[in-house]
Amino acid sequence: MTLGELLAELDCDALGGEMHALIRELYPTCRSITGDGVRETLRRLGNLIELTTTEVASGTDVYDWTVPREWNIRDAYVKNRAGERVIDFRESNLHVVSYSVPVHRTMSLAELRGHLHTIPEHPDWIPYRTSYYSEGWGFCLPHSQLVQLPDGEYEVCIDSTLEDGHLTYGECLLRGATDDEVLISCHVCHPSLCNDNLSGIAVAAFLAKQLAPLSLRNSYRFLFVPGTIGSICWLSGNEERLQKIRHGLVLTCVGDAGSITYKRSRAGDAVIDRAVAHVLESAGRPFEVRDFVPYGYDERQYCSPGFDLPVGCMMRTPFGEFPEYHSSADNLEFVRAESLAHSLATALRVFDVLEHNLVCRNLKPKGEPRLGKRGLYDLIGGERVQDSQLALLWVLNQSDGRHDLLAIAEKSGLPFSAVRDAATALLQTDLLEEEPRR
Amino acid sequence: MTLGELLAELDCDALGGEMHALIRELYPTCRSITGDGVRETLRRLGNLIELTTTEVASGTDVYDWTVPREWNIRDAYVKNRAGERVIDFRESNLHVVSYSVPVHRTMSLAELRGHLHTIPEHPDWIPYRTSYYSEGWGFCLPHSQLVQLPDGEYEVCIDSTLEDGHLTYGECLLRGATDDEVLISCHVCHPSLCNDNLSGIAVAAFLAKQLAPLSLRNSYRFLFVPGTIGSICWLSGNEERLQKIRHGLVLTCVGDAGSITYKRSRAGDAVIDRAVAHVLESAGRPFEVRDFVPYGYDERQYCSPGFDLPVGCMMRTPFGEFPEYHSSADNLEFVRAESLAHSLATALRVFDVLEHNLVCRNLKPKGEPRLGKRGLYDLIGGERVQDSQLALLWVLNQSDGRHDLLAIAEKSGLPFSAVRDAATALLQTDLLEEEPRR
Amino acid sequence: MTLGELLAELDCDALGGEMHALIRELYPTCRSITGDGVRETLRRLGNLIELTTTEVASGTDVYDWTVPREWNIRDAYVKNRAGERVIDFRESNLHVVSYSVPVHRTMSLAELRGHLHTIPEHPDWIPYRTSYYSEGWGFCLPHSQLVQLPDGEYEVCIDSTLEDGHLTYGECLLRGATDDEVLISCHVCHPSLCNDNLSGIAVAAFLAKQLAPLSLRNSYRFLFVPGTIGSICWLSGNEERLQKIRHGLVLTCVGDAGSITYKRSRAGDAVIDRAVAHVLESAGRPFEVRDFVPYGYDERQYCSPGFDLPVGCMMRTPFGEFPEYHSSADNLEFVRAESLAHSLATALRVFDVLEHNLVCRNLKPKGEPRLGKRGLYDLIGGERVQDSQLALLWVLNQSDGRHDLLAIAEKSGLPFSAVRDAATALLQTDLLEEEPRR
Repeated sequence: MTLGELLAELDCDALGGEMHALIRELYPTCRSITGDGVRETLRRLGNLIELTTTEVASGTDVYDWTVPREWNIRDAYVKNRAGERVIDFRESNLHVVSYSVPVHRTMSLAELRGHLHTIPEHPDWIPYRTSYYSEGWGFCLPHSQLVQLPDGEYEVCIDSTLEDGHLTYGECLLRGATDDEVLISCHVCHPSLCNDNLSGIAVAAFLAKQLAPLSLRNSYRFLFVPGTIGSICWLSGNEERLQKIRHGLVLTCVGDAGSITYKRSRAGDAVIDRAVAHVLESAGRPFEVRDFVPYGYDERQYCSPGFDLPVGCMMRTPFGEFPEYHSSADNLEFVRAESLAHSLATALRVFDVLEHNLVCRNLKPKGEPRLGKRGLYDLIGGERVQDSQLALLWVLNQSDGRHDLLAIAEKSGLPFSAVRDAATALLQTDLLEEEPRR
Repeated sequence: MTLGELLAELDCDALGGEMHALIRELYPTCRSITGDGVRETLRRLGNLIELTTTEVASGTDVYDWTVPREWNIRDAYVKNRAGERVIDFRESNLHVVSYSVPVHRTMSLAELRGHLHTIPEHPDWIPYRTSYYSEGWGFCLPHSQLVQLPDGEYEVCIDSTLEDGHLTYGECLLRGATDDEVLISCHVCHPSLCNDNLSGIAVAAFLAKQLAPLSLRNSYRFLFVPGTIGSICWLSGNEERLQKIRHGLVLTCVGDAGSITYKRSRAGDAVIDRAVAHVLESAGRPFEVRDFVPYGYDERQYCSPGFDLPVGCMMRTPFGEFPEYHSSADNLEFVRAESLAHSLATALRVFDVLEHNLVCRNLKPKGEPRLGKRGLYDLIGGERVQDSQLALLWVLNQSDGRHDLLAIAEKSGLPFSAVRDAATALLQTDLLEEEPRR
Repeated sequence: MTLGELLAELDCDALGGEMHALIRELYPTCRSITGDGVRETLRRLGNLIELTTTEVASGTDVYDWTVPREWNIRDAYVKNRAGERVIDFRESNLHVVSYSVPVHRTMSLAELRGHLHTIPEHPDWIPYRTSYYSEGWGFCLPHSQLVQLPDGEYEVCIDSTLEDGHLTYGECLLRGATDDEVLISCHVCHPSLCNDNLSGIAVAAFLAKQLAPLSLRNSYRFLFVPGTIGSICWLSGNEERLQKIRHGLVLTCVGDAGSITYKRSRAGDAVIDRAVAHVLESAGRPFEVRDFVPYGYDERQYCSPGFDLPVGCMMRTPFGEFPEYHSSADNLEFVRAESLAHSLATALRVFDVLEHNLVCRNLKPKGEPRLGKRGLYDLIGGERVQDSQLALLWVLNQSDGRHDLLAIAEKSGLPFSAVRDAATALLQTDLLEEEPRR
C-alpha cells in the first residue's frame, strides 16, 4: 500500500476514536521528566508500534545539562485536623508540584500557604506546576478551595523519591528506501494533561502505526521524549545521525477544537515549512503559519544554532493561548476525536509531499517535447486545457535541476498532487529523470 | 531619423488604418502550419518588408518533432440530397478542420455528426478546429445550423492533399550597430482569424517597416512562423544565434478593444520584462502584467528550459479570455485600427527603452561634479529642482557600473526618457562613459 | 557615565531651552559658504565643544571643484531719492543675495527690478537667494514692498568683498574605545535661517557636548561645514579616514514642529538605516522613513558613488516641504525647544544602538544551555515568560556570528534595549562572546 492509497481510504472517524481512547487510557498516569510514569506510557505505546526504549543514567552529562535524579511518587495529601484529605494526589496527579521532594510534617496554614499554587482567574481549575531544577515541594489546588481552607494545623505528606536512576525515552524508526529521515518528536513528561502532551503522543503513535506497513521513500523516526532534557539526551547520543534529518515536525497541542497553527523552522524556508504551508493552503480550511521563535517545545533544541535542523512545530491552538493550558481543564473533554484525526491526516498529507518532492531534469529541454506521441496529451486543438495537462507543461518547463516539485506547485498554483502525478507520468517516458539528491 | 523622432511624429490614425487594411487583405487566405496559405501570406508581407523565406522539408527532425507533411486544400463541402452545399468551404475556411485528410463519400447524418464541431454556447459562430498530429477530418459549423440539419444522406467532400512538401516561415533581420538582437515573433498558421493571428502579423510587419529606415543600436529579427513547429524549426536551425538574443517579444491578439496584457519571460525579471512594465506604467492607461506560464504561444518554445530566452508575450485580451477566441467571431470587426496602432506604438516605446538602456560609469564619482560649469545646471540657489536636473543627479549617483538606465528610472520614479536624456547629455562631457556590455 | 545612564537622566526641557538660546545667539550672523560669518559661528561653538577649525585657501582644487574666493559683507542698502534706506541689510541679512559682488550706483527702478527677488505667494516674507558660482548681485524683499516701490532713481550699495581668502570648517572628534567612527554632519552656510541651518548646528553641538564626557565604544566625528563645497573639502582632505566611518547622520531641519523624517543612506539597508528605523518604530510617535534620493544636503556628497558611505539624513519636515523654507519665515518662532530636544534625544537613542550593536557567538550552541544555574532564569515552570527571558533565548538562538543584536531585535520584535541587556548578561557568562568586527 502506498501513502497515497492510505490517504484515499483514511477512516478519520475510526482513527479519531482510537486516538481519543488511547488518550483516555494514558490520562491517569503521573508522568514527569523521569520516572515510572514515562516507562508505563512507553510500554503502552509499545503495544501499538515497535518502540525502542533508552535509559540514560542520572548524572550523565549531556551538553550543558546533567540528567537529573529520577523522581517517583506513590502518594501525597494534605490532611486537616480531622484527618480528612483536603488535597489528595489520588484524585488528580496535578495536585502535586512535579519533582516535589518528600515531605511529611504538620504545619500551620500560614506556612503551608507558601507551598500552594492556584489560578485565581479560574478558581475551579487546578494548575500544573513543576520544580525540576530547584529542590522544593508544593501542592496545586483550585483557588476556590484555597480561600475556604480554615486556619489551623495540617498534615502534609508527599511520599516521593528523588534518587539516582534514569531518564527514559522511546524511539520508533521506520526504514524507508533512503536514509533521508523525517523526525517526528513529541514530549511525554506531563501528567494528566490532554492537549499539551497526550494529543501529540497519540497522533505521533498513530502516524507511526499508519506508516509502518507502507513502502516509503524516506525513513521516519518518531521520538517520545521528556521535554527539553529528553530531546537534548537524544541529540547528544545521535549527533552522527543528524545530517540525515531532512525534515522534522514537533507535534503538540494537536487535539483541541482550534484550527491548525504551524510554526516554521529556524531557517523559515525549509522544505518542511513550504510543504506544511502548501498542504494547509490547499486544504481550504482556516490555518495560521508563524515564524520561528526560540520559545516553545523541543523545536527549541532541534533549532538551536549548533544543530539548526529543519524542524517545525505543528499545533492547533498554541500553548499559552488557550486558558485551559497547564491546568486541570486541559482534560479529556478539551481534546476531540475529530481534531486528532484532522491533525493526523494533515501530517500524512505533509509526508505525502515529502515522499514525492523530487527534483527532476527535463531530458528534452529544447522546445516542448511532443506529449501526444507519448500518450500524454489529448489534442483536437482549441479545447480548454486541463490542470493535468498544464501540470505536464509546468514540470517540463521548470525541471532544470533547480526546482523541486513543491516549488513547481507553488509557482504554478496547481495542487501538489497534480504536479506529482505529472512528474510520475513523465518519469515513465524518455522526457524526465530524477536528479540525484545533493 | 532616430526612433525617438519617429515616435514623436508617429501618425497612429494612418498606421492603424494601414494595418487594418493589411488584415482585411490577408483575411480570406486559408493558412495552416504548412501549405500555400502561409506562402501567400509571406509573399504579401514581402511587399512591405524585406522578408527571407525558409522552406523546411517534411520529415525533417527538429528536436523532439518531425516536420509534418504539407497540407493544402482546394475545396470542401457537405451537400444535401438536393445537391445544395449546406456547408461550404468557399464561404469560410473555418468550415473545415485544419489538416483534414481528403474524403469524398456519401453518409448518413448520424455518421457525419461524429465529424461536426459547433459551439453550443454561441450558436451562430463557426468554431476553429485543427487535427495536425492525428489523421482525421471534420467540419465546423454554427450550432444553430447543426440542430436544423434534416436526417438523411449527405455528400461529404474535402478536396485536400496531405503530402510530403515543406513548412514555410519568414524572417526579416534589421541589422543595427551591434549584434545584440531583439526577437519579435508572431504565428502565421491560422486561417480567417483576425485577433489571434492577423493582428500580430500586421503589427510585427509594420514594426519592421517603421524600424527599417532607422539607425538602430540593436539588431531586430522578426519571425513569421507557424505556431509551435515553426518556432521549433527556427530554433533548431539557429542555435548558434541564440546567445545574441538579448530581448524578445511574442506578439499575438494585439488588435482587440481590451487593454494591454504583458506576460513575463520565464526569468520574470529580464530587461524586456522591466522595460515593458516601465513603458506601461508610464503610459497612464490600464494594463496588466502577468507571470510566465508554460502555456500560450511560441514563448513556450523560446522559454523552454534548454533555451530560457528573455522573451515575453505582448497581448491585449489574452487568448481564451475573449469568447470570440478560435471562432468566426474573431473577425474583421473584432480588431480595431486604434488598438493595432496603440499596440504598435507601445512596442516602439519598449524598443526605445531597449535602444537606450546603457550601463554607464561616473568618471568623477567622488562627490558631485560641478554641473554648472558644464552648462548642465541653472543655478540661482533656492529654486525648485526640475526633473531634468534631478535626472542628472540620479544618473551620476547610480552609474557605478551596476545599474542600467532603466534601473535608474525605476529607482528614481522618473520617466525613462528623462533618465536617457540626462545620460545622453552627461556622455557628451567628461563625467560619464558607457560601460562595455558584458 | 554611560550613554544609557545619560539617556535615563536626560533633561529635555533644559536642553531644548539651551539649544534654542544658542540658535537665538547665532541667528543675526551673516553666514555664507566662506567668510567671517562662518568663523564667528564656529568660534561661538568652540565655547561649547572642543572644535578644530580648518581653513582651505581659495583656489584649492577639491575633486571637481575649486574653493571659491572668500565673501564678506559690511553693509548694503537701497536708498530712495529722499536718502531713506528702503532696503536695509542691517535689518535682515536675507535682504542681500549671498555672494553678491560689490556695487554702488544710482539706477532707475526698471534697471533695479532685474536684481530684486520676492515670493509673490508669500508677499510678506523675504526670500533667501544665493549666487555662489556666477558673479552677480541682488536684493531680496517682501513682494508687498516691491509692488509699492515708486518709479524713480535709487541709490544701490552693496559693500562686500569677494577676494582670495579661505573656506572655513569646524570639526570635533570624540575618541572612543575603537576607531570605528560615527560621522555627524551639518551645514553652517546659511544666514538668518533657523530650521534650515541653525537647528542642525545646535543639535549637533549639543550632541557633542553630551557625548564628550562619556566612555564610548565608537568614535564620534562632528563636522560643521559649508554645504556641498565644505563637505567636499573635508572628504578630499580625509580620504584615508573614510574606511573608518561605520555610520553617519546628516542633521538638518531638526527644529520645526513636524515629526521626524529619516532619509536612508544610498545602500538603504546600512546599520544606521536599520538603527534609526528601529528607534523610530520603538518610540511610538509618528515618523517617516524615505529612500535615498541624490538631492538634499551633504549626504549627496557622502553617498556619491565614489564614497558610498553609510550616511543617512535625519530631519523633521524635509526641506522644500514647509512653505517657510528659504525665507525669512524660517525664523526663531519656527523652531521649537521641544522639537530640538526630541531630535537630540532621538539621535542619542540611535547612538545607543550603535554603541551596543555587537555580533556575538553562542559558545554552547548545541541545545539550549541552562540559564537557571547561571542565575539568568527564574523557574517554577508554567509561568508566563518575560521579555527579558525571551531576549536571552533570542540572543542565544541567533548568535551564530551572522546576526547583530539589532537584527535580533528586528526579528524578535523585542526592543533593542531588551536584547542588549540580555547580551550584556550573557557576555558575563561562559555562554556568549563577542565576534571580532570584520
